[in-house]
Amino acid sequence: MIDTTKYSILSKVNTPKDIKTLNQNEIKILCDDVRAYLIDIVSQVGGHFGAGLGAVELTVALHKVFDTPNDLIVFDTGHQAYPHKILTGRKEQLHTIRQLNGLSGFLKRSESEYDAFGAGHATTSISAALGMAEANKILLLKKKVVAVIGDGAMTGGMAYEAMNNAGINKSNLIVVLNDNRMSIAPNVWQIHNYFNEMIAHPEYKKLKDAVWDLTGKLDQFGDRIRKAALRLERGIKSVLTPGMLFEALGFRYFGPINGHNVAQLIKLFEYIKDLNGPMLVHILTEKGKGYTPAEEHSQKYHAATPFDKLTGKAIKVSSSIPSYTSIFGKALVEIAKENEKIVGITAAMPDGTGMDYLQNEFPNRYYDVGIAEEHAVTFAAGLATQGVIPVVAIYSTFLQRAYDQIIHDVALQNLHVVFVLDRAGLVGADGPTHHGVFDLSYLRVIPNMVIMSPKDEAELRNMLFTAVNYKKGPIAIRYPRGNAVGVELENGFNEIEIGSSEKIFDGNDLAILAVGNMVQYGKKVYEKLIEENISAELINMRFIKPLDENRLLEIANKHKTIVTLEENSLIGGFGSAIVEFFSDKKLKNDILRIGLPDQFVDHGTQAELHNILEIDPQGIINKIKNFINQK
Amino acid sequence: MIDTTKYSILSKVNTPKDIKTLNQNEIKILCDDVRAYLIDIVSQVGGHFGAGLGAVELTVALHKVFDTPNDLIVFDTGHQAYPHKILTGRKEQLHTIRQLNGLSGFLKRSESEYDAFGAGHATTSISAALGMAEANKILLLKKKVVAVIGDGAMTGGMAYEAMNNAGINKSNLIVVLNDNRMSIAPNVWQIHNYFNEMIAHPEYKKLKDAVWDLTGKLDQFGDRIRKAALRLERGIKSVLTPGMLFEALGFRYFGPINGHNVAQLIKLFEYIKDLNGPMLVHILTEKGKGYTPAEEHSQKYHAATPFDKLTGKAIKVSSSIPSYTSIFGKALVEIAKENEKIVGITAAMPDGTGMDYLQNEFPNRYYDVGIAEEHAVTFAAGLATQGVIPVVAIYSTFLQRAYDQIIHDVALQNLHVVFVLDRAGLVGADGPTHHGVFDLSYLRVIPNMVIMSPKDEAELRNMLFTAVNYKKGPIAIRYPRGNAVGVELENGFNEIEIGSSEKIFDGNDLAILAVGNMVQYGKKVYEKLIEENISAELINMRFIKPLDENRLLEIANKHKTIVTLEENSLIGGFGSAIVEFFSDKKLKNDILRIGLPDQFVDHGTQAELHNILEIDPQGIINKIKNFINQK
Repeated sequence: MIDTTKYSILSKVNTPKDIKTLNQNEIKILCDDVRAYLIDIVSQVGGHFGAGLGAVELTVALHKVFDTPNDLIVFDTGHQAYPHKILTGRKEQLHTIRQLNGLSGFLKRSESEYDAFGAGHATTSISAALGMAEANKILLLKKKVVAVIGDGAMTGGMAYEAMNNAGINKSNLIVVLNDNRMSIAPNVWQIHNYFNEMIAHPEYKKLKDAVWDLTGKLDQFGDRIRKAALRLERGIKSVLTPGMLFEALGFRYFGPINGHNVAQLIKLFEYIKDLNGPMLVHILTEKGKGYTPAEEHSQKYHAATPFDKLTGKAIKVSSSIPSYTSIFGKALVEIAKENEKIVGITAAMPDGTGMDYLQNEFPNRYYDVGIAEEHAVTFAAGLATQGVIPVVAIYSTFLQRAYDQIIHDVALQNLHVVFVLDRAGLVGADGPTHHGVFDLSYLRVIPNMVIMSPKDEAELRNMLFTAVNYKKGPIAIRYPRGNAVGVELENGFNEIEIGSSEKIFDGNDLAILAVGNMVQYGKKVYEKLIEENISAELINMRFIKPLDENRLLEIANKHKTIVTLEENSLIGGFGSAIVEFFSDKKLKNDILRIGLPDQFVDHGTQAELHNILEIDPQGIINKIKNFINQK
Repeated sequence: MIDTTKYSILSKVNTPKDIKTLNQNEIKILCDDVRAYLIDIVSQVGGHFGAGLGAVELTVALHKVFDTPNDLIVFDTGHQAYPHKILTGRKEQLHTIRQLNGLSGFLKRSESEYDAFGAGHATTSISAALGMAEANKILLLKKKVVAVIGDGAMTGGMAYEAMNNAGINKSNLIVVLNDNRMSIAPNVWQIHNYFNEMIAHPEYKKLKDAVWDLTGKLDQFGDRIRKAALRLERGIKSVLTPGMLFEALGFRYFGPINGHNVAQLIKLFEYIKDLNGPMLVHILTEKGKGYTPAEEHSQKYHAATPFDKLTGKAIKVSSSIPSYTSIFGKALVEIAKENEKIVGITAAMPDGTGMDYLQNEFPNRYYDVGIAEEHAVTFAAGLATQGVIPVVAIYSTFLQRAYDQIIHDVALQNLHVVFVLDRAGLVGADGPTHHGVFDLSYLRVIPNMVIMSPKDEAELRNMLFTAVNYKKGPIAIRYPRGNAVGVELENGFNEIEIGSSEKIFDGNDLAILAVGNMVQYGKKVYEKLIEENISAELINMRFIKPLDENRLLEIANKHKTIVTLEENSLIGGFGSAIVEFFSDKKLKNDILRIGLPDQFVDHGTQAELHNILEIDPQGIINKIKNFINQK
């Protein structure tokens, strides 16, 4: 797609061993090449961008100094991994990134031996790297292990758990804190305030003044005292640095250093790579480094759609249909205007979840807790005990992080917390780490939980309104990534009766019970079946829990064949709820469950994946016909 | 049960308002009374003990100073809450603790308005309290909010997430760190090392020496310089304390102070209660304080069975049947002797999980990561990438904490991690926070996961052997709390074919498919049905995933009526797997699913709960007969 021979040094670098022989000047050019190539490719095909631009020198330095893939580099989350992919044999495939059968947008063990640990969710790298470091002890190996983690991921508690353990074990582990002072959203890490305020710390100031007093006044007392005073000042400086915090966790601290000075990075890594014990290297980088639009708008360029390289303007033809995310965000503001007890909570995803609308309108009723889903949910539970109504918007896949908190802190106490699960179902380009295909199963088993899924954006608005007014306990709404349906929106809101379904089309030959976005496919299936003289009844079930049992009994009575449609695993989800109900009632209808198979699904567009998994309208029709024709 | 009038002050104290009027001497006597009463009661009825003894003065001081229940005190985990229960209207019911219909062993909102937040799992208190503090802002209230958290719970990452957020928000929140330098297991908190080593810190020493040099030599230079030097020394001391760490998180630090000096505690709380912003009060206490056997054997007295008050000896008649826990622990050591790649991981529960056997035999292949289940699982994933075989033993209910890590870090990469879920099913006295009744549902939906459950201890040994030799991906074993069956154990181990079931009894009238401990109830049911001339076939399914499909087809063919038995929620668990299979195959057998209802189950003995929920043998028989006789 891009002719890589045009880059003078990158053209000669295919794997890390090609970096080893480069001189200091060539290393610098390689960094420029990688950055230029990254801009060339991402401007054409889109992808995670800002983090990679910020990590160019770091990645080059790591592969220069360490003996990868024998030495193990664990990148956290993976947004920053594009330069790593370029330098580890995947340069020519980079243009396929996030596309069907192309490179993954994240780290992936099955993609390359250089990807030591898969990632996608944040804050796993130190734990995984610590496991590798301890495996070295068990297996008597001498591999070096490096975890590379951003300051955003450092807001997750697992980082602290892992560092605590590394400190206890005195493991041989290097953690690189790639600090761009910006996670996905503007920073929510208190430690930064600490770093910044350290210099202004009153005690620090007092100490400095005291030293100043002494050293200023005592010049006349000769060398001995001056030396003591200097030693004192040095001592104060070496204690009063950001390193203190990491030293408390048992880490030896190096930094902060300029993460765009590749020579300095190489020197430091060379120096520490044979030291023992846990070490933290604190580097300061700029997200989007080297591409002005990305430096200036780091959130926008976190994950970019294709754009004009010169102007930075997105090339994509924008859809006139709003996203579910924006529908939710705007509806929440409308509802929050009428009910001052409502607050919104996001875990470092204000834009991604649409919570930025609330942030702009009611900043005092908006909480970004950082990449800390566990805390987000128990924090919401605490709010709910006092009668505040927390709306917790977390992607389906990330809510897995807070599973115990939903059960133990919210549902067991039957607290009114509204869970909003965006990105439910197959998410497309982000792939298996991000598909939200388990939530119906993992939420359904939780007592007291109500689960609903809207067929379109108008219903999402009403479901949100229903959820904030529910009051009796926890209630969840799940909907897919991407554009909504494009239906007209009414003014205001209507409450939906809990556990009520809606008949979309009447029919005589079979019944289709669908939830969420699959109702739209159900409509297409209905229409195509009509053409073949098959008359299907289509029900929008709306609620996965509780089920509309009267509707189910009526359907059971009327139709021999029943089809369930969901974008969730077929294990334990909506279809399972239906067969549990039918089985318990000894109803003998034939039930065809259509949903996602028991496997992890790779990346690709949503449409491609639906097609491959035969859950697009044609696939559904084929399955229905096969089922009817089966013995 | 105990005549409370014999305690001179406690007899007059029923609720916190009775404490407000006591003078300093009476307060001290109250502490002695509470401690004596606690020993009297727990020696008779058992219960969590050491933590409560350590928290007597703290609890009295909190209720003396704060206006509970209007002010909100959030106790973490709840082990330390017995004195709180005594002082908040529940003194006379304390002897019912952990018994059916009696007081909960933990905090419980539905039990008392003084229990601001339910607990049972660790590390939730700061998040919940922060929610309450922020609710104050939203609702314009002035309630004081206090979180009380032990040093053990401080190893959990949520504490760090929550403190980071409190620091960012500058919330009005007091966190009391009740530091007994001992969580449930001996300490695994690196910060302690930091506290302890601070004094020996070379920089600290250098600074002290430097100051000493200066102050010692400069006496003759008069007041001005001496003052500067003193100020310097004070400055150094106030910076170089454990407080640094919490200050980095945005907290104002007070302490460490003696947590058994009630007068000092009261004075401090009086002083800080009207201050603004997040504050951390660090108190040092002794677990088991005031009862010598508990001071000396803190793990043994963490949760005590009834004991002789004078000698500390347990009164309980010990069973000759070993616990599943000890069977697992010993089997792991046997297997680990033959395979040096096996390591064990516990999250602060070496005794509870039986991992202490491995700890004793192979301390270098044993990891206690602290109360950090998330880290435990991703750490295991890291080990597994290198070919080490991690056996992760975490109670069923606590593994909920690591749900995302199981999916994202283990199963998605199909890594060979062995999960051992003790305390699966109803756990008895610990109640709803601890019942392990969701695991079959939440694990079953995860691709690549194998799930098995042994019918007795001999099978547990073989399943563990099977699991460590499986190699293909993640594999889980779940078994209940308490004594095993008492069957004879063979020498050595046999591998069990993955997905294979076992016929226990043949029969003609119906089939019972059981998993785990429910196979034993199945046997009793079989025998009783025989007496009534009903011939049941009993299958030990062994595997919840994958199912033995050949067996199921054979059973479907042979029996009209099929009964499934499991100690898991009826939503999405084993019985659901069976009805999914039958439905997908259009098999029309009548299936009766017996398991746990969709509700949180209170505490009581396991036998009592089985009886109430009608999943004991008689309850099962009644359900079967009703089902058969139904239209």
